[in-house]
Amino acid sequence: MKLWEKGIPTDKQIEQFTVGNDRELDLVLAKYDALGSIAHTKMLGQIGLLTSEETTSLVDALNEIIADIVVGNFEIEDSFEDVHSKIEYLLTVKLGDAGKKIHTARSRNDQVLVDVHLYLKDELKAIKEQVKTLFDLLMESAEKHQNVLLPGYTHLQIAMPSSFGMWFSAYAESFIDDITMLNAASKIVDQNPLGSAAGYGSSFPINRTFTTQELGFETLKYNAVAAQMSRGKAEKTVAFAMTSVAGTLSKFAMDVCLYMSQNFDFIGLPAHLTTGSSIMPHKKNPDVFELIRGKCNKIQALPYEITLITNNLPSGYHRDLQLLKEGLFPAIQNLKACLDIAIFSIKDITVKDHILEDKKYDYLFTVDTLNEMVVAGMPFRDAYKAVAEQLEAGTYKSPKETKHTHEGSINNLCLDAIKDKMKAAF
Amino acid sequence: MKLWEKGIPTDKQIEQFTVGNDRELDLVLAKYDALGSIAHTKMLGQIGLLTSEETTSLVDALNEIIADIVVGNFEIEDSFEDVHSKIEYLLTVKLGDAGKKIHTARSRNDQVLVDVHLYLKDELKAIKEQVKTLFDLLMESAEKHQNVLLPGYTHLQIAMPSSFGMWFSAYAESFIDDITMLNAASKIVDQNPLGSAAGYGSSFPINRTFTTQELGFETLKYNAVAAQMSRGKAEKTVAFAMTSVAGTLSKFAMDVCLYMSQNFDFIGLPAHLTTGSSIMPHKKNPDVFELIRGKCNKIQALPYEITLITNNLPSGYHRDLQLLKEGLFPAIQNLKACLDIAIFSIKDITVKDHILEDKKYDYLFTVDTLNEMVVAGMPFRDAYKAVAEQLEAGTYKSPKETKHTHEGSINNLCLDAIKDKMKAAF
Amino acid sequence: MKLWEKGIPTDKQIEQFTVGNDRELDLVLAKYDALGSIAHTKMLGQIGLLTSEETTSLVDALNEIIADIVVGNFEIEDSFEDVHSKIEYLLTVKLGDAGKKIHTARSRNDQVLVDVHLYLKDELKAIKEQVKTLFDLLMESAEKHQNVLLPGYTHLQIAMPSSFGMWFSAYAESFIDDITMLNAASKIVDQNPLGSAAGYGSSFPINRTFTTQELGFETLKYNAVAAQMSRGKAEKTVAFAMTSVAGTLSKFAMDVCLYMSQNFDFIGLPAHLTTGSSIMPHKKNPDVFELIRGKCNKIQALPYEITLITNNLPSGYHRDLQLLKEGLFPAIQNLKACLDIAIFSIKDITVKDHILEDKKYDYLFTVDTLNEMVVAGMPFRDAYKAVAEQLEAGTYKSPKETKHTHEGSINNLCLDAIKDKMKAAF
Amino acid sequence: MKLWEKGIPTDKQIEQFTVGNDRELDLVLAKYDALGSIAHTKMLGQIGLLTSEETTSLVDALNEIIADIVVGNFEIEDSFEDVHSKIEYLLTVKLGDAGKKIHTARSRNDQVLVDVHLYLKDELKAIKEQVKTLFDLLMESAEKHQNVLLPGYTHLQIAMPSSFGMWFSAYAESFIDDITMLNAASKIVDQNPLGSAAGYGSSFPINRTFTTQELGFETLKYNAVAAQMSRGKAEKTVAFAMTSVAGTLSKFAMDVCLYMSQNFDFIGLPAHLTTGSSIMPHKKNPDVFELIRGKCNKIQALPYEITLITNNLPSGYHRDLQLLKEGLFPAIQNLKACLDIAIFSIKDITVKDHILEDKKYDYLFTVDTLNEMVVAGMPFRDAYKAVAEQLEAGTYKSPKETKHTHEGSINNLCLDAIKDKMKAAF
Repeated sequence: MKLWEKGIPTDKQIEQFTVGNDRELDLVLAKYDALGSIAHTKMLGQIGLLTSEETTSLVDALNEIIADIVVGNFEIEDSFEDVHSKIEYLLTVKLGDAGKKIHTARSRNDQVLVDVHLYLKDELKAIKEQVKTLFDLLMESAEKHQNVLLPGYTHLQIAMPSSFGMWFSAYAESFIDDITMLNAASKIVDQNPLGSAAGYGSSFPINRTFTTQELGFETLKYNAVAAQMSRGKAEKTVAFAMTSVAGTLSKFAMDVCLYMSQNFDFIGLPAHLTTGSSIMPHKKNPDVFELIRGKCNKIQALPYEITLITNNLPSGYHRDLQLLKEGLFPAIQNLKACLDIAIFSIKDITVKDHILEDKKYDYLFTVDTLNEMVVAGMPFRDAYKAVAEQLEAGTYKSPKETKHTHEGSINNLCLDAIKDKMKAAF
Repeated sequence: MKLWEKGIPTDKQIEQFTVGNDRELDLVLAKYDALGSIAHTKMLGQIGLLTSEETTSLVDALNEIIADIVVGNFEIEDSFEDVHSKIEYLLTVKLGDAGKKIHTARSRNDQVLVDVHLYLKDELKAIKEQVKTLFDLLMESAEKHQNVLLPGYTHLQIAMPSSFGMWFSAYAESFIDDITMLNAASKIVDQNPLGSAAGYGSSFPINRTFTTQELGFETLKYNAVAAQMSRGKAEKTVAFAMTSVAGTLSKFAMDVCLYMSQNFDFIGLPAHLTTGSSIMPHKKNPDVFELIRGKCNKIQALPYEITLITNNLPSGYHRDLQLLKEGLFPAIQNLKACLDIAIFSIKDITVKDHILEDKKYDYLFTVDTLNEMVVAGMPFRDAYKAVAEQLEAGTYKSPKETKHTHEGSINNLCLDAIKDKMKAAF
Repeated sequence: MKLWEKGIPTDKQIEQFTVGNDRELDLVLAKYDALGSIAHTKMLGQIGLLTSEETTSLVDALNEIIADIVVGNFEIEDSFEDVHSKIEYLLTVKLGDAGKKIHTARSRNDQVLVDVHLYLKDELKAIKEQVKTLFDLLMESAEKHQNVLLPGYTHLQIAMPSSFGMWFSAYAESFIDDITMLNAASKIVDQNPLGSAAGYGSSFPINRTFTTQELGFETLKYNAVAAQMSRGKAEKTVAFAMTSVAGTLSKFAMDVCLYMSQNFDFIGLPAHLTTGSSIMPHKKNPDVFELIRGKCNKIQALPYEITLITNNLPSGYHRDLQLLKEGLFPAIQNLKACLDIAIFSIKDITVKDHILEDKKYDYLFTVDTLNEMVVAGMPFRDAYKAVAEQLEAGTYKSPKETKHTHEGSINNLCLDAIKDKMKAAF
Repeated sequence: MKLWEKGIPTDKQIEQFTVGNDRELDLVLAKYDALGSIAHTKMLGQIGLLTSEETTSLVDALNEIIADIVVGNFEIEDSFEDVHSKIEYLLTVKLGDAGKKIHTARSRNDQVLVDVHLYLKDELKAIKEQVKTLFDLLMESAEKHQNVLLPGYTHLQIAMPSSFGMWFSAYAESFIDDITMLNAASKIVDQNPLGSAAGYGSSFPINRTFTTQELGFETLKYNAVAAQMSRGKAEKTVAFAMTSVAGTLSKFAMDVCLYMSQNFDFIGLPAHLTTGSSIMPHKKNPDVFELIRGKCNKIQALPYEITLITNNLPSGYHRDLQLLKEGLFPAIQNLKACLDIAIFSIKDITVKDHILEDKKYDYLFTVDTLNEMVVAGMPFRDAYKAVAEQLEAGTYKSPKETKHTHEGSINNLCLDAIKDKMKAAF
């Protein structure tokens, strides 16, 4: 059943090409579509375009549909173009004319817009919660291992002392910035587009403030054309925020893979978090973290895909926008899966205790030595030359411990301040 | 059945995360995996690592598997990690020890490499054929409508006369460049990686020249490390070539959508190639071409996704590479679907005959007028000023026809030369 | 003068390759580098690593350098590697040993980090102000032209009535979302990285809270490793926010170019905002808006460039990060130039008054007609069929005016509510 | 002097915005612009639009201009919009009316198109030569160090034996694929666009075959619209080929940086190829290779920038296209600089001799051991289990040498076959 069909049979190949995998993708929207329809129905009742009986029976029927969706008892058969036609069909079968009337004063354009906005709001909230859980675990690990030293690298060259406390809490603090991005994206999708109809509003006397409150949006996207333009723009904004999270997680995974290499050997993973090789019996590969890295890197291509689809399209709806779902929806699931598996895995990372005993790390403390000379009164550049000469002559002695004091240094991690910052940002 | 399993149970969540949708994606590789295994089997026979009985029974069994795959009678159940384990399982069930022996002197790394190379070779060939078919149809349309004039635009401003002959054959000639790119990609994937094992070759006395001939590759990627590095690089190269085709097709679709707008009204599409609106009864929307445009734009993000996944990974296999399939394989199917639907639709585009009668196009011929003055002896800049003055004064008279003569101009489209160029490039 | 030079001459070609165009790019950082040095100096004085005389003379000398920078009397000659060495050189020439001491407890890594953070804070503020100015002008135009109707398009097909009031204020409201993104980016760069030294903190007893207050940062990036990781991440976040603005502005420019086409002819630009053609005397091209579109599209590639440079690099400084400046700094200037020229041009856009008189727009009001039937009691689908039949029969009569009432519709633009939303977001 | 100026003063701000940095970028095109003008002049003479005196004097004047350009005695002052106006101005000052006549039958659109095509042809040729030189050096290093073993990694885990011979020649062979891409790009730019005028051809009886031969193009882009569409498409194709080279070089640089780390310590660089740290006296950083990596990664963003600028623009010239130069031209210079510095540096890479003596590499040879058992008759899976048990029990003995025989393996690198492949591809 295609709503716009006027008697001319559409070629089968054309239909398949145009519908694409919408039926499958739309399943995640089903609940939101029904919720949007409930708000729309109540509003139509409020302005007198539906009788109170029609309103009640439609709302009841939609709540039943939601109940079915929640238990997985809902599908979009090949005879329906999308979730909107399926739900309208169910209502019409059950309620006849009243079912037909629900489409009054709206278009599939603002239906899908409101569905996607509601869906993204929920998913952003879920992602934020996951990032917070991961933050907490990283902070726990930082606290637990705060006294275990680690070489710090610049240019992949052994540079200065670091610690597992520094390393774990660095990623934790870095995730706070991603929370800020997720908040911005949440704020942007928290604007009701319902009522924009096909992108230019409606001549019906609808009450958009009513549906805004009903659906729990913070505000409405007032201008109908602006509401329509949020198709693509909302998705891109969410993709930026997801990319931000993914970038941090990918970098952490890169560190894990490198530190797992026998050439670093800083950390270990239990057997159930590694995989073997079909021809190399001794291998314990960090596939989980390689896949977190890879999947997070793939997610970072999403904003560009969205930009390419939407760029240079003049204002007004274009069918191209339908394609945004097929990149965005799996990316959201992938990011959530990566966060889940990171949360699952992070507590099992074991840290090696005596890393700095290896003599290749002896130079790590040269800067600390140099600084002590400076504190004792020697000009920096002279101390620099003195240490350089000790190194040349092989007379340099490494202290093998740090006595750093400033905010955010090895011996003063400021974990509580970082937790407070997260609390304030969340 | 995981080949590398050594008794430690892998967590269920980890397994799901790491296997991903490989079982589904690997189905397109099944035939190629069996073909690769046949070549590998024969080679093992040739170097004496399999008896001739083992070789024969393995080749027979693999041919039976191919027959099953071809008729759709092949699946990869949840108990198998990928296509390789499934096929090895089938062989082992049927042939016992001989089945086990087929994995001698290879790794899943070079198995998937050779599968993907064979698959990409075939798909590039298919895409080339489609582009050629589309080229032929565009050339036919150019020939048929070569005398129908069209306004030519610069800066989206009415500029100079063009024609449907020019327009259709412009895209045809432009596709020749994409054939050149497809050829380059084909050449690059036409190198046998089999025998590179896990990326560093094998200590078995294998004969890679034998498998190269057996599989019909033009040459081998000799260096085993280079063969391994082609994972990601081959995909990216194919993505570049696909992107090239997609860019041309997307631009054509943009023109079609613009020319279909009532504000241009240069072309028409039959009802079965348009869709309507759920609330605007008069709409005849070019959804097919909007989706061609959108899908082709999405495809153009593919090289960046591949680059992001592979970039800055040092040499040697990383599990991240497994994720390349899930972007590339659907993109190939999408490009082929776009080409198919374009081939299907292009002959139904109707062109409007009397476009230039609208007075807004009167200025189109000013340059031709100006040029006539120049041919008659007036310096260009003076003629330019003279025409500008006629325009100011409203005295300019439009000739409404062109008498262009040079190669590739409206009245001398050089269609045969363009066809010859395609023939030479193909 | 290279700070790290130890007597071995660096090859000339190598030097040129590694320094790149840093001397030129660093000029925009000069003021911020001096400001960072003042804060660092005062802090060194506060913790007793500089005497109060040294502190005073260094601060005075740095203020003099800032005065020179402000009037353009500052350059980085070829004998200096970057802005940091140049300023240190000036201080050393003037103050001898005290000049040398300023580098105590910092590294060029955290110097450039703090410079870039201060610079980005300022530029984001400037961009926000520009967006606000553009918003105000768009709202003024919306108010002024709120009664002038315009066809609204979907699929580039004539669809429903819109208005210049809708069009101008749609972009205005859309820019509010970009302000939200700019705010997020501002919050993220408003964290002091100074004191992170080479990325692992310092063994000196520095006071980072002091420099944070001195430099006016809202908070500090506590963890030194997190501070170092903000190199690349801060730039990417700013690039996302800029991309957000650029995407909105680019789309507006696309509309302008399309609406300027004689085939739409909805708006006009005065002569000084158009350019001509060297061979087509009648052309008035909207180059300014084409270049806004093109430059804004180019800016949207920036996050991808930054991601490619930084992706898959393990934690810790890498020289690659130096390259971030050469993409980001010009992009900031380009975005500001685009906003400037848009602000400059927007008030000169003239709107055409009687657009809808053209008969091709007659169908625009079919949905309004249909809705009236529905309000009068007819079920939507039946009204839809009735109007479709009128259209088929050629009996449809267009009302040529709208009576929309809902929030954000043609006749109820909610401009004040939109202004309030901007005020709250800003 | 703007060619299209008609008496209305263009606002200064607008002029600066629209001209951008064309004057600077156009300098690299100056020689090609003059060469294009010579061919065009001769053609105009041949078809009788210029007298033979005019032709001769114009060609002479243009050759003088080229001589000036070659010695650096050419600039584009602020009074000129671009290189085309400057050269036309020089001709007009010198030759009066004849100078004016040279613009007959062409537009700046096809002038810049032919300039860019000629420029790209030359640069692609230069890049190919550099890649070939680098290939030769890598092959030399492979030959020289073919017996020095190296651990091979998968998942960054120690996996199987490799060698410097493998490593160097892997990159060499990989560059052959990039040559294939450069060849495709060269073929695509080797088509004469001159004569397409503003994108729709000319009404003058020009002879495009003549200019094609005169300029040394292999063929012409016949269709004028296709020629115009090559603006953006040619640049993108070249960017793909450059990206291909850059991707290979970036990966090599990543390996170098990793192998230089003290945790791998596989290779060394002489002092003049490293830089130090302002606060860590012992550092010897591989900045050169980090910058090769970073610059090559940045180059890989170029195709995306070009795509964003050109995507979804309908056919016909748009001013946006002017912006292509400012991304492409520096990227070409950067890629050439990276190749130069790689060529300069690669011979100075020293390889460490006794890497495999470290006991962490003992497991490297397990697969070889396992394979020997298989050759001796044991089924693979059983041998696999046997070796796994030896490893568990700590009884495994490493052979510390390889006896690989197949094509492309450690002991049979097939360097001559790889050289032949390069010869055939070049």
